[in-house]
Amino acid sequence: MRFHNLNQNAPGWQTLSDTEGFANPFAEVHIVKVTTPMRPEGATWTVVHRKGACVVAPMTAEGNLLLIRQERIPIRSSIWEFPAGQIDPSGEHDDALIRETALRELREECGHELAPGGELLPLGMFFSSPGIMDEHNYLFVARPIVPSPNGPEPEAAEAIGECRAFTPAEFRQMIASGEIRDANTLAAFARMTAMGIL
Amino acid sequence: MRFHNLNQNAPGWQTLSDTEGFANPFAEVHIVKVTTPMRPEGATWTVVHRKGACVVAPMTAEGNLLLIRQERIPIRSSIWEFPAGQIDPSGEHDDALIRETALRELREECGHELAPGGELLPLGMFFSSPGIMDEHNYLFVARPIVPSPNGPEPEAAEAIGECRAFTPAEFRQMIASGEIRDANTLAAFARMTAMGIL
Repeated sequence: MRFHNLNQNAPGWQTLSDTEGFANPFAEVHIVKVTTPMRPEGATWTVVHRKGACVVAPMTAEGNLLLIRQERIPIRSSIWEFPAGQIDPSGEHDDALIRETALRELREECGHELAPGGELLPLGMFFSSPGIMDEHNYLFVARPIVPSPNGPEPEAAEAIGECRAFTPAEFRQMIASGEIRDANTLAAFARMTAMGIL
Repeated sequence: MRFHNLNQNAPGWQTLSDTEGFANPFAEVHIVKVTTPMRPEGATWTVVHRKGACVVAPMTAEGNLLLIRQERIPIRSSIWEFPAGQIDPSGEHDDALIRETALRELREECGHELAPGGELLPLGMFFSSPGIMDEHNYLFVARPIVPSPNGPEPEAAEAIGECRAFTPAEFRQMIASGEIRDANTLAAFARMTAMGIL
């Protein structure tokens, strides 16, 4: 399976061997041997492949931010985070489809959509764990947002307990205290702060 | 293998089945069925287990920050990031060993150590990709730092091209432009900003 369109063969990078260790629709594990600019003799590495995703910071007209409280099975707990969802791999070559994915997650997980004339502002992307995984998530701010006619449309596999608005001061305090503890929301906060949006 | 000491059996969370799909010293994949507070009938999920890690933001007496430029095989590129390294799983129950790991990475990857009287300030932890993986990284600021007598002591498996100091304004600009794009460094910036350290 090809999960994304990252360049696998930049100058100096070449795959010498690639053995699949595990594969299902959610993740693959490969043992690869690759040359790198600093390791022309090649290095062996364990790599987890996973689809890219979109993360949306939903901002109301008043400047408040919506967070969802979601059960996350790998960490056995519910956490407050920005809505997010994976991109259909075929969509990664197309900016319009990446934006559609972001707006879909805003609608499905949060029950909100862009107000007429609202903007979906890109904050760039990031790698969640580049020492082991190629997962990379595209960050956006959606502003201003309004409730969508149908409310939240949760996917069957997910478990979202709540969606709530927080003031920027409350949000910042949740970051400082460690209550917000997922890479998606922390990365979006980092970019928003550095770009002067928050 | 037990990679960490996260609570796997909080109230309402119970493992009904757990099948190993892949295992090597770097990662494991398990297919689990667990009950959750919102899904008492149980849900099936693919979970990647990986060791926890420490991430250090090294700050000089002048308030500048050190970054390393490291080759990351899963994403086929070199990126600027804070030094980081995994915790021996047996060390996760012990704050002192977590702090030792942070200082070890500062020394090995960056060739620096805490100045006499310097502090290793904890910024809490975060989950890099809680939808698929239990990896969780402990964030610290080390300040002030000074060059260590032996310089960098790189591990054989790693490839670090450079270690350089950046002013807070340069660092912020690298976050805003998307040049800094790993969860560790973005999460550390988020916590430092929210806590008023940067």
